[in-house]
Amino acid sequence: MKSLIRDVPDFPKEGIIFKDITTLLKDDGGFRDAVEALHDIYRDVDIDAVASVEARGFIVGAPLAYLLGAGFVPIRKPGKLPAEVHEEEYELEYGTDRLQVHRDAFDGAKRVLIADDLLATGGTALATAKLVERCGAEVVSFGFIIELEFLNGREKIADYDIVSLIKY
Amino acid sequence: MKSLIRDVPDFPKEGIIFKDITTLLKDDGGFRDAVEALHDIYRDVDIDAVASVEARGFIVGAPLAYLLGAGFVPIRKPGKLPAEVHEEEYELEYGTDRLQVHRDAFDGAKRVLIADDLLATGGTALATAKLVERCGAEVVSFGFIIELEFLNGREKIADYDIVSLIKY
Repeated sequence: MKSLIRDVPDFPKEGIIFKDITTLLKDDGGFRDAVEALHDIYRDVDIDAVASVEARGFIVGAPLAYLLGAGFVPIRKPGKLPAEVHEEEYELEYGTDRLQVHRDAFDGAKRVLIADDLLATGGTALATAKLVERCGAEVVSFGFIIELEFLNGREKIADYDIVSLIKY
Repeated sequence: MKSLIRDVPDFPKEGIIFKDITTLLKDDGGFRDAVEALHDIYRDVDIDAVASVEARGFIVGAPLAYLLGAGFVPIRKPGKLPAEVHEEEYELEYGTDRLQVHRDAFDGAKRVLIADDLLATGGTALATAKLVERCGAEVVSFGFIIELEFLNGREKIADYDIVSLIKY
């Protein structure tokens, strides 16, 4: 899978080497391998719902939810979810951003897997876990395709089980 | 499936009744049924890649791509895709918006299914088809979970095959 991930220099800004997974996703075998590798890890774990942050996270979480026979819950930027929400603010390099989840997103779904394409600084991941917990559900694990180890995101969510397929 | 879709009045603005599919997605059986109903329609069609527009479209297109053994191609808002893109502008009720696709998104993938949650006015759908074709690929069909028939989106993409599971 690693060979299908493309390095794009200076995106989103100078000096950053962006790990582009679109080259993995567009490859039928690569996409299947990534989804199945995560499924293999969680197939015997009791999971009621998979939650993912828009937008790339949906590409990982939705097929995984399907394979696990679980529901899928989208975590979104403000203004996108139509019903009542919980909201969490988290820090970016400059400023803050916010994520929302429907308050009734996990009713009946107690055990939640958070799936995303990338673990970077862990800020988004931690905010997502807080949102799941504010809905009264439990975070069973985080599953990522890529982990950027040099950003130490794992430390920010050290209280949780963490799986990543590819490490840089 | 229809019974799992929630009507949210006055979203995103007064007088609109929003069809909220998060209540379908979070239901393990409902999510599975929606994905499999689309898969059943396309399972014997030769499809190399599934393309979907961010963000809700990814929730439909990614599992469908997996089941069809196809690659998945994200169509995104400007500034999200890191490599060289094609861009299409399309009209909104007030003003315009733009969508982008990687220029190399479909190399080797000639036959493309465009999957999305909702066919409304058809503006986004038509822009997506143009992007696929600018990449040298062919649009085999559009597959939607919901079609809002009173908005006549079907007319805007009348040159293409169109499938929708639930009509309002």
